[in-house]
Amino acid sequence: MTRAGLKPPTIALLTDFGTRDWYVGTLKGVLLSGAPGATLIDITHEIPPQDILAGAFTLAAAAPWFPAGTVFLAVVDPGVGSHRALLAAEADGRLFVGPDNGLLTLAFERAKQLAIVRLTHARYWMKAVSRTFQGRDIMAPVAAHLARGTTLRQLGAPVSRVERLALPAVQRRGRRLEGCVVHIDAFGNLITNLPAAVLAPRAIVKFRDRKARVVSSYVEGRPRELIAVVGSLGLVELAIREGSAAWVLEAKREERVECTEG
Amino acid sequence: MTRAGLKPPTIALLTDFGTRDWYVGTLKGVLLSGAPGATLIDITHEIPPQDILAGAFTLAAAAPWFPAGTVFLAVVDPGVGSHRALLAAEADGRLFVGPDNGLLTLAFERAKQLAIVRLTHARYWMKAVSRTFQGRDIMAPVAAHLARGTTLRQLGAPVSRVERLALPAVQRRGRRLEGCVVHIDAFGNLITNLPAAVLAPRAIVKFRDRKARVVSSYVEGRPRELIAVVGSLGLVELAIREGSAAWVLEAKREERVECTEG
Amino acid sequence: MTRAGLKPPTIALLTDFGTRDWYVGTLKGVLLSGAPGATLIDITHEIPPQDILAGAFTLAAAAPWFPAGTVFLAVVDPGVGSHRALLAAEADGRLFVGPDNGLLTLAFERAKQLAIVRLTHARYWMKAVSRTFQGRDIMAPVAAHLARGTTLRQLGAPVSRVERLALPAVQRRGRRLEGCVVHIDAFGNLITNLPAAVLAPRAIVKFRDRKARVVSSYVEGRPRELIAVVGSLGLVELAIREGSAAWVLEAKREERVECTEG
Repeated sequence: MTRAGLKPPTIALLTDFGTRDWYVGTLKGVLLSGAPGATLIDITHEIPPQDILAGAFTLAAAAPWFPAGTVFLAVVDPGVGSHRALLAAEADGRLFVGPDNGLLTLAFERAKQLAIVRLTHARYWMKAVSRTFQGRDIMAPVAAHLARGTTLRQLGAPVSRVERLALPAVQRRGRRLEGCVVHIDAFGNLITNLPAAVLAPRAIVKFRDRKARVVSSYVEGRPRELIAVVGSLGLVELAIREGSAAWVLEAKREERVECTEG
Repeated sequence: MTRAGLKPPTIALLTDFGTRDWYVGTLKGVLLSGAPGATLIDITHEIPPQDILAGAFTLAAAAPWFPAGTVFLAVVDPGVGSHRALLAAEADGRLFVGPDNGLLTLAFERAKQLAIVRLTHARYWMKAVSRTFQGRDIMAPVAAHLARGTTLRQLGAPVSRVERLALPAVQRRGRRLEGCVVHIDAFGNLITNLPAAVLAPRAIVKFRDRKARVVSSYVEGRPRELIAVVGSLGLVELAIREGSAAWVLEAKREERVECTEG
Repeated sequence: MTRAGLKPPTIALLTDFGTRDWYVGTLKGVLLSGAPGATLIDITHEIPPQDILAGAFTLAAAAPWFPAGTVFLAVVDPGVGSHRALLAAEADGRLFVGPDNGLLTLAFERAKQLAIVRLTHARYWMKAVSRTFQGRDIMAPVAAHLARGTTLRQLGAPVSRVERLALPAVQRRGRRLEGCVVHIDAFGNLITNLPAAVLAPRAIVKFRDRKARVVSSYVEGRPRELIAVVGSLGLVELAIREGSAAWVLEAKREERVECTEG
């Protein structure tokens, strides 16, 4: 479990703290105090409050694009102050720190190499640990230590079972695949769990009783037309060009999307 | 076309991606993978979706304040996946990457030295290029290469004609100048295309049938009074002290603003 | 008044500019022009427009977590263009630049070592100073100079009296302490001026005619129950688990919160 450190070390943050308050600034102050000169990157701080699934999805989407050695500090932590564990993990050379509530696990799903420890060694934490802001008191100090080369094993003992969070599986019924909306992005695109491979040109994609025309880029959409396109995550998305599919359809996460082979 | 690189290289980002999703984080991961140690700066990610003019205005307002050598990565790209070109440009020592839809051009308007190429050399891109997120697949990798010293000419062939976007011109009718609102900022100030020079103390500034009193700083405004002031871009702004002129007047971009010499 | 500079120098920003416009990008361009290679950190740019108290509270909450040598550039400046002074200060090794309107002073309250100067030496400013954006023209250039090692005394003469801003004091009436809401955070938690020490397990905390149950972490709250907890600033907070106390109670800053010893 040795690794080449990034120079300068890079720490990427994902939280549900919003950007109005001192919470993010406080994390960054702690990170810079522990890892002077580190590059701090915001993935987002606008995960809907306590929405672990949205946080997990967003982290898993962004993390693969960062260089090996990056430390990801992820805090969506409705259980702060309870007995939920805190974790550090290394997956294919990227490092993760966060609560044991599933937030980190989508980012590990396809990892070839994976190690996870439970944070137990308090010498790597703030001396005083509150029961209301453990991002500041435990997770950020640990992320700074990881960025400077502390190994997972110094932070705590390996764990084999952690809270896992999985996207709903696609169901096959004859020639019909039943998936669902797993994320709605800021453009109002409905991102589904249907993989790119299902989107043959003659496939029929339906949301409620509405058909979506299969296209290969957003610009092929006509005004107000619902289209189905392979999005940047390799998943089928429903979209309306220059509009918001989520708004027009009042769509919600978990709603069903069907795809029938043409 | 040689240039001294910034150390560390600096890449400034402007997009309409919002900050809720993984899109900005993904760009940053790609940038740091291609240009390790680069300083990444957010100008804004809250350009209204696909509003090229707002993006162009904001980029042109911020860019001159950055040091020479800065690379600007600008992505407001409603044409993603179509045949619109992608560009890299160098203007007075600053570098720009973005789609050929006018987004970059306001920032060039007064450049003494300008070179523009069309991105055609795929060896500087991601190996797999999607039709839905070319900010990630082409533009960010190219920006990282530029930050590390790749020259424009390595990226593609020079182009002489690009999509240009211009602010509406001020019209003169006798002693009256007719301009318009070109941008509304987050304070609700109405920024016009009227240059500072028109704002003599005795000038009469009108928005619809309402006069704005000419002052030299926001604090001179009285409660609820509409004032006209030379803003920080050297353009006439209409404002209401400790209030939002845009909200009170329900003003929109492109609405006419008149100025008559006093 | 000598000090060891941070390497790389770190400048932390707090403003009410929002993140939609070019204002923050412009500040950052000026900072990087003056202090190449500086690490720029956003505390927040979403202080409610011209809300000096919210800015002061947020700055004071975040600043202690940053390493000594950090320069804080704080701009919430409704008086821009008036005769209000601009200040630079050093408090326990941290440096501050901002307007003389109380914005900085909560961060100094417990400082053991404090020096404040009024910015008067124009050689450290932009050559042209506007009356509408002195964050860009004076404060950012001065912050960059401080980050590079310019001393306070080079920037101007010491001042002994500055605008001070204080949180309301807690009043004691017999066994009852009367405090108030001093900040509402993005989760809707009501942060009071009551110190942690008052929150004995048998204390009775009241907001209007509603009792809040004393707990030691958010997760102990039951659905819709109003709880009182020691928050991460060491102050009593009123909260509703997985909900927004501010929204449910339509609570406002300055509303009274009482605590009676049990």
